[in-house]
Amino acid sequence: MKGIYIKNNNVVWHDGLVTMEDRNRSNGYKSGIVWFTGLPGAGKSTIAHGVEKELFERNIGSYVVDGDNIRHGINSDLGFGRDDRKENLRRIAWISKLFVDAGVTVLAAFISPYKEDREQLRRMFEDNIFLEVYVKCRPEICEQRDPKQQYKKARAGILKQFTGISAPYEVPEHPDLIINTEELNIGESIKAVRETLERYLKL
Amino acid sequence: MKGIYIKNNNVVWHDGLVTMEDRNRSNGYKSGIVWFTGLPGAGKSTIAHGVEKELFERNIGSYVVDGDNIRHGINSDLGFGRDDRKENLRRIAWISKLFVDAGVTVLAAFISPYKEDREQLRRMFEDNIFLEVYVKCRPEICEQRDPKQQYKKARAGILKQFTGISAPYEVPEHPDLIINTEELNIGESIKAVRETLERYLKL
Repeated sequence: MKGIYIKNNNVVWHDGLVTMEDRNRSNGYKSGIVWFTGLPGAGKSTIAHGVEKELFERNIGSYVVDGDNIRHGINSDLGFGRDDRKENLRRIAWISKLFVDAGVTVLAAFISPYKEDREQLRRMFEDNIFLEVYVKCRPEICEQRDPKQQYKKARAGILKQFTGISAPYEVPEHPDLIINTEELNIGESIKAVRETLERYLKL
Repeated sequence: MKGIYIKNNNVVWHDGLVTMEDRNRSNGYKSGIVWFTGLPGAGKSTIAHGVEKELFERNIGSYVVDGDNIRHGINSDLGFGRDDRKENLRRIAWISKLFVDAGVTVLAAFISPYKEDREQLRRMFEDNIFLEVYVKCRPEICEQRDPKQQYKKARAGILKQFTGISAPYEVPEHPDLIINTEELNIGESIKAVRETLERYLKL
């Protein structure tokens, strides 16, 4: 008897009984990643959440990852120095890969100031499912908005290594999409991303 | 004009425009986490993948996280010492929280040999959405199965700190479910988990 049970339970590594392709086929669209980069206060998270809501209403699985659920969670052990920013993005990339594999489109909103890091991110995903969105806004306008009072704290020296004040931001050279939030309002911004997603992911 | 645009784009942190509750309501079931613990070769991943497949066929969003997609990805920087095992589980827990928040049920298959670690995991989730499944199988039977030839390598000293050979496994005292894979075959094991999930998550 024992032999039979063992045979029945022969435990081998099944390389994904349910694959991303299965999920995408069942969903009727591809899963991918939208990477929002830009200065603090440019509008990255706001646009990402707006897109998420629109997709949700259309029954398309997506999920926002941003500082709020990453920096306060899995990456609460990391700071804002060069190495920690790298590790921050490395982990986010791997998490995003899991979501994409699970058929869920990731809307990732992170300052991600370094070109080198963003290029590394892109290399981790297939070309046609990685969409870099540069959320553009002049520093002085971001500082005027200052939604979380971070610029104020950075000016006061309370926040160190703050992008735009005491740490650099390298403007993307060839993003897939530029959203200028000085020119577009939130509805227009969301629409631009959604339309680009429709082309990329065949939504 | 500028003033108007800024007002339109007033960037504030929207605390989840789409909440887990919204997703669960739309899906018609709750999202949660099934934590499979047990010796290497006990059958954790196999059962998890089987459950995933059944849920997928019923259009219920779930996703397996296990050594294959975690240890080779986000946690490739970690080893198997006590601290690294703790960090391994800490990250997995936070990743799982994101998935649950996204409305996707996590099927987590990890040896997770320490009672202390598993208790800490449980505390990170609401009681009624965390399900601990002890995948039970005698060490000598697991070693006979040895699906990845890990026991062999551990005996040869190639794999260090291998649970069951050179590292301890603390048997769960009060798991939500025990699956004895010496007695149940794979179909029966999957069924037992699915039925328990139906009660917990109102599938």
